[in-house]
Formats: sequence, structure tokens, C-alpha cells
Amino acid sequence: MKNKQTDPIHPLKAPILKGSTAALSKAISLVESSLETHSLEAEQLLEQLSKDTASKRSNSIRIGVSGVPGVGKSTFIEVLGGQLTKEGKKVAVLTIDPSSQQSGGSILGDKNRMQHLSQSPLAYIRTTPAAAHLGGVAKNTRPSIQLCEAAGFEVIIIETVGVGQSELEVQDMVDFFLLLHLPGAGDEIQGIKRGIMEVADALVVNKVDGANAPLAKKSQQFLQHAIHAFPSRANHWEVPVLLASATEGHGIDQVWKTIEHYIDIQRKTGEFERQRQQQLIHGWHAEINQALLQSFATDVPMQSLVQQLEKDILSGATTKNEAKRKAIASFRGKWPSS
Amino acid sequence: MKNKQTDPIHPLKAPILKGSTAALSKAISLVESSLETHSLEAEQLLEQLSKDTASKRSNSIRIGVSGVPGVGKSTFIEVLGGQLTKEGKKVAVLTIDPSSQQSGGSILGDKNRMQHLSQSPLAYIRTTPAAAHLGGVAKNTRPSIQLCEAAGFEVIIIETVGVGQSELEVQDMVDFFLLLHLPGAGDEIQGIKRGIMEVADALVVNKVDGANAPLAKKSQQFLQHAIHAFPSRANHWEVPVLLASATEGHGIDQVWKTIEHYIDIQRKTGEFERQRQQQLIHGWHAEINQALLQSFATDVPMQSLVQQLEKDILSGATTKNEAKRKAIASFRGKWPSS
Repeated sequence: MKNKQTDPIHPLKAPILKGSTAALSKAISLVESSLETHSLEAEQLLEQLSKDTASKRSNSIRIGVSGVPGVGKSTFIEVLGGQLTKEGKKVAVLTIDPSSQQSGGSILGDKNRMQHLSQSPLAYIRTTPAAAHLGGVAKNTRPSIQLCEAAGFEVIIIETVGVGQSELEVQDMVDFFLLLHLPGAGDEIQGIKRGIMEVADALVVNKVDGANAPLAKKSQQFLQHAIHAFPSRANHWEVPVLLASATEGHGIDQVWKTIEHYIDIQRKTGEFERQRQQQLIHGWHAEINQALLQSFATDVPMQSLVQQLEKDILSGATTKNEAKRKAIASFRGKWPSS
Repeated sequence: MKNKQTDPIHPLKAPILKGSTAALSKAISLVESSLETHSLEAEQLLEQLSKDTASKRSNSIRIGVSGVPGVGKSTFIEVLGGQLTKEGKKVAVLTIDPSSQQSGGSILGDKNRMQHLSQSPLAYIRTTPAAAHLGGVAKNTRPSIQLCEAAGFEVIIIETVGVGQSELEVQDMVDFFLLLHLPGAGDEIQGIKRGIMEVADALVVNKVDGANAPLAKKSQQFLQHAIHAFPSRANHWEVPVLLASATEGHGIDQVWKTIEHYIDIQRKTGEFERQRQQQLIHGWHAEINQALLQSFATDVPMQSLVQQLEKDILSGATTKNEAKRKAIASFRGKWPSS
């Protein structure tokens, strides 16, 4: 165990607290790094920032925005973020890019995304690859949110693609989870997933532009109908289905009013803080799981045992199950590893 | 550690080896069960089947089929499976349904999927929810493949949705990985992910029906171009881009010929067996990780320590990092847990 007195104050601490986005970017790179020394540095930095950030943290709003590719998430976030920065709010956008798992980039580059918003001095935009390694989305995104808050960002928007596991993870680290839909309900190509719809705090039919309007109305009705089949919320919140056109700028302020209203209710009932605490503990559990696997994968005597067991499995000298039991018993100090 | 002599032969063993699909379904349910007694039963059954299945296993072909929602995976698999069963081959289809993570069903029910194929006595179709719990897709699919092979199925087709993490996992448990595309290249809505395209052994532009033909040609060219930018394969395989219309039945036999040709090369070079062994070891590592987390989550003294640490974190008596270190040290037998 480390002697905490001897940990020097991290040089990024002061500039982050002053709002330096350069320092913020460096800190997020530490978080995302796969080097163990960087992870430890990031851990220490987060711990050092934690106490000075308590009030910033409890005043921030964390919003998750999800939806299938093509639904217009980026444009939606750009317009919403633009409105908020005009009101003088500091807005951070963290985008999780599941396409950059292997090659570090989607076929359709995204260098030009959110060009307007990125020019605002009140905005910070960061794309995080949904790394294929242990821990998934949560590993990098949770600490990145904390870092943005330490740097004074008041609204944190997390963008994720609406298919699969990652949005359930994201929903568990935000105060408000928004799901965008294309006009045209019931179309299989939308790949709307029931489990994801169930956890949304609001649904927005986006791209309600001109000729799409009647289709959008139908989508709205379809979604309202679908929502009624879901179990009702513990907090009695009735999930609204809103209409918006990010490209034409319609309906975005209604979405923001809905978010503010929801957060207001949550704060008054104490549910806001309770949910944050629950998410903190869930995050801690995810970190433990991550650290457990890491501890196993980086333990030198364990790994030489594992290599021996691999040979034994392939030669038929042992079975996968027996080898598994030996490896775990050894890891827990209950079986000799030599 | 268990005394293996005392494990009785599992009652499902004999009927599975005789090809009973009822027994096969029961065994897959054991694999998918979250009850620990069921997992242990499944482990034992797989171990008992393993030796009797060696030759069936090395003669089988495992195919992964992926693509975005709406690309026509089900119809494609139905037609391909139909051709194979007509040739007298036994075909098993395992579908991973990412939409049933929370609520046990997608909004758009799939009871009617693959109606024709499911009527063939040579076909077996099973939908597996991509459970939100530990271990993801791999946890259930790998052993399900083994069970299908033990029951005598010669071609195992694994269907998965082409966005996110699951297809990279699936690619690591099949001999041939097929990615389906819609006509209309470069359209963001297709959500084609570079990382997934890179691991495909063949690309198929599907829905090449009538009016779509010119668009399909363009897609083919676009994809051929995209493929050339990827690193070349260790086995010198040139990834083909094929055209097909599952609804009209065109191009499916060309796809099958391509698969057979590839498998033939792989078998001759010994690469087939080498890849199977590598996948076996990867699967074993996934099982160990799964078992490690399980062992942590189900250890009673560990969990009472964890609850105490949660309280200490929320009260500020400890930090998340310190609490994490204590939990892991205790798990490894290196820190008193009381």
C-alpha cells in the first residue's frame, strides 16, 4: 500500500482547476493510456482533484445522448451545445466512437464534426475510442467526466451509438439519458432496442424537417404507445416523446427545458444525489473488476502458470475446467503456482 | 478440487451424441442459465462430450454472419441454410440477439424468423440473448457451438448484429467471418465499422434486386477499394466482395463455394487447426476472466468487506483507490478481510 503523504501534487492539478483545456486533454490521455504508470498517475490526479471539485460536481449536469448511426446525434449535440454556450454555460462533449476499436478510426472520418461548437471558448469536445480492451466504455468515460467537471464544465454531454451494451453503461453514468429517433417508426433498420428505450428519460424524434413532418408525428405516436407498455418509473417521471430538427434548430430548447425540469425535480427529491452515489458505487465495482483482471494478467508467476496450463490443455494433459480451477486457486493464494 | 471419478455421466450426453435436438436445447439452456449449479452441470457435460466429439469437431465449419440491422441476415442465412440442408448437411444457426438484454425481447418480435429453414429436420435454430451479465456474447456462444457439433451439426452459423463489440468476439470463434452490406456505399446509416470490415473473410453486398443493381455495383467497387487499404492477410487470402440477393436466391451458392474454398486452403496449410487452437485458448482466457469475477462476486466474506468499503467511500472515510486496493489484496489472500 502506498504512503499517501509522499505522493507529490500532480502538475496538472492546478491548471485543470483553473479550466485549462490543454491540461484537461493531457489528463484524459493519461486516463485512456494503456500504460500502468499512466493509470496510476491518473488515479492520483483524480484523487487529488476530488475534494476541490465537490461543489462543481454536485452542480453539474451529465447528459447521455444515444441513437443509431445516421440519426443526427452530432448535429443535435452541436445545436444544443451552441445554445448552452450562448447562455454562458461551459459545455463538454465526450464522444464514444465504437468504430475505432481496432484501427483507430471510422471509415467516414469525423474530423469535421461539431465544427461550430468546437470554436466556442466555452466548449470542449473529445472523442474517445471504445477500446476493445478490458473494462469497455465505462473505464475511460467515468474519470473523463470527473476531469471535465474539475475543469469547470457545467454540462457534460456523452454521445454514444445506440446499439448494444455501451449505452446501458452510459445511462449508468449520467443524470439524464436522451434517445434520438429517426422519423419512420417501426422500421427495422432503426434497430431500436427495447432495453435501451426503457432506460431513456426522454425520446426525441429528430430530423422533423418539412416533408418528414407527418412521418414524425406517426413516430411520436408509435413511441408514446411503446413507452406505455414499459414499467412506470420509481420517481413517477412520465417519459416525454419530443419532436426536433437539429438542422433547422427547432425543438432543441424544448428538449433543454425538459432536462432542466427533470434535474430540478430530481434535486428537490434528493434523488439526484442518491443516483449519483449509486453510480459512484457502480463505477467503483467496474474499477474493481477491471483491476482484478489486470492484476491477474500482469502477475508474472501467474502468467507462467497460465502458459504451462495452455500447453497442458492443447496436449490433452488437463481439461479447460481443471486448468481454470488451478489458475484461480493459485491467484487466490490457495494453490501452489510452482 | 473435484474428484473426477465420482462425477456420474450426464443424462444428456447420450441423446446429444445421437443428435437429439431436444437434448441439445436442454443443454444450451444449462449453458445460458445464471444458476451456478447449472453452469457446473454444463461444464461437466461439455467435458464428458469433448473426447467423443473430436472428429465431429475437426470436420465442422463455423461461420459468422454479421451486418447492420435491416441488411437481411436472417433471410440470407435461411437461404444458405436451405441449400446446405438440401445437400444433406446438418445446419445449426445460433442467433445472438442484442436487443433482449433487459426485457427478454426486441420490440419487433422475431418469432417468425427463418420459418422455412426451421421446418427442415436437418436444421436447428436457436436465439441467444446477448445477456447484459458478465462475459458477454462469448460466454454462451462458444459452449453452444461445441454442443451443436456434439449433436452432429456440420455447419454452425452464428448470426450477430454488425455494430460494436460482439462481432469481434464472434469473429474469434468462427472459421469464416462474413459481413453483409446493403447496396449504397458510403452511407453513414450503414454504420460500417472499419475494425469489423478488417476481420471479415468475405464481404457480401446483399439485396441486389432489380432496381438496386447499379447501386450494388457501386457498393462493390467502394468496398473493394476500401479493402485494399487494409493490411494484407498472413495467409495471403484476398477478401472477395460478392453480390447476392437472398430474397431472389442469387449469388448464395457463390458465397458457399467461396467459404468451402477458403476452408479447404486453411485445412491444407494447417492454418485451420492452428486457428481453432488459438480460439480455444482465447475462449479459455475469457472463461478464466469470467470465473475470476464470479469468484469475487460470490465470496461471502469478500462481499461483506465490499459493503463496508462502499460505506467508507460514501462517508469519505476512504478513497475509491484505497478501497479498491484493500478489496483486491484481501481477495488474493494478502490482506485481512476482518
